Amino acid sequence: MSTRTEALIEFLALADRLKHIERRGETANPDGTSRRENSAEHCWNVALVALLLHADMPEPRPDLGHTLAMIVAHDLVEIEAGDTFAYDEAHLLTQAAREKAAADIVFATLPPDLGRKLRGLWEEFEEAETPEARFAMACDRAQGFLQGFIGTGHWRDAGIAEAATHGRMNPARRVAPVFETLIATLYDRARAGRMFRE
Amino acid sequence: MSTRTEALIEFLALADRLKHIERRGETANPDGTSRRENSAEHCWNVALVALLLHADMPEPRPDLGHTLAMIVAHDLVEIEAGDTFAYDEAHLLTQAAREKAAADIVFATLPPDLGRKLRGLWEEFEEAETPEARFAMACDRAQGFLQGFIGTGHWRDAGIAEAATHGRMNPARRVAPVFETLIATLYDRARAGRMFRE
Repeated sequence: MSTRTEALIEFLALADRLKHIERRGETANPDGTSRRENSAEHCWNVALVALLLHADMPEPRPDLGHTLAMIVAHDLVEIEAGDTFAYDEAHLLTQAAREKAAADIVFATLPPDLGRKLRGLWEEFEEAETPEARFAMACDRAQGFLQGFIGTGHWRDAGIAEAATHGRMNPARRVAPVFETLIATLYDRARAGRMFRE
Repeated sequence: MSTRTEALIEFLALADRLKHIERRGETANPDGTSRRENSAEHCWNVALVALLLHADMPEPRPDLGHTLAMIVAHDLVEIEAGDTFAYDEAHLLTQAAREKAAADIVFATLPPDLGRKLRGLWEEFEEAETPEARFAMACDRAQGFLQGFIGTGHWRDAGIAEAATHGRMNPARRVAPVFETLIATLYDRARAGRMFRE
């Protein structure tokens, strides 16, 4: 029996936990209520956003495959570190250190070549410097913002004014005109629905 | 305001429903119980399997980006058609027709170029003929099989003997030696755990 195979099976059993890391954003239940979204669902949804918006990215387009690989891997550290709410300032201050420690645990369970590969994808996403990482970052933030329209409106409920969201959304808007248009449309809807704290 | 942007926002609101399509396979809750996995979580997990196994695919390797795009899109028709349990023979007989009708509804909500793109990915996955579609199929089936080890053992509970699983798993085993090794290991574990109906 292959040690590599055993390590992969153990890692996939560990990765199953991402389906139980709750985010602040909600998803709509079929009965009209809502529940919190989990990070596995979020990762799929961010990948879907990338798939949909890629054709509208300006040339030279980021590599879609590399972007999707980064999106698939970008939240695995949450298995150990948990999700950090985008507007929890105290928690955000410790996020980098907590996620670095989590990465040391999570990626160490993989065969070394795969541990390096997934850790590299996570680090590239976090640094948000390559064209693919910037595209992935913008998809991640747009998805989080979109999810705010579901359920009870988590900006207002969380006491968040519109101005407090700009620091998070402006870098995404600047990635490409398609994000500027999408996010401006979402802000118009959120204002019309009085979804921010006033 | 752009009609394209509006259509994308509406489609993403529709796609949110995939987070509520339940599969038979389970995922482990943090408290030791389990619940059914949903199709959005499944899609992320299949993409993770592809990311992990790609380096072990023989040359010429399938294109990872195209494979991941197919995996992201492959279950969207379930928003209308629901999930079909792999061992529900009566339901399987009508699956193709139900999913075709669902595709006509789901992909029609997108701007035409994106509707064609996502429908093309779904059809390629279903036909399982290209190297990328065969790799995606094998990842999909391996993930479903892996999920059987979580929770209460759904083969035994669903009255499924080992022999009944071979028709589904043999095509995945034949895709590449890495799948043969992985799936053989999983069968060894399932037999040792007496997880099949006897």
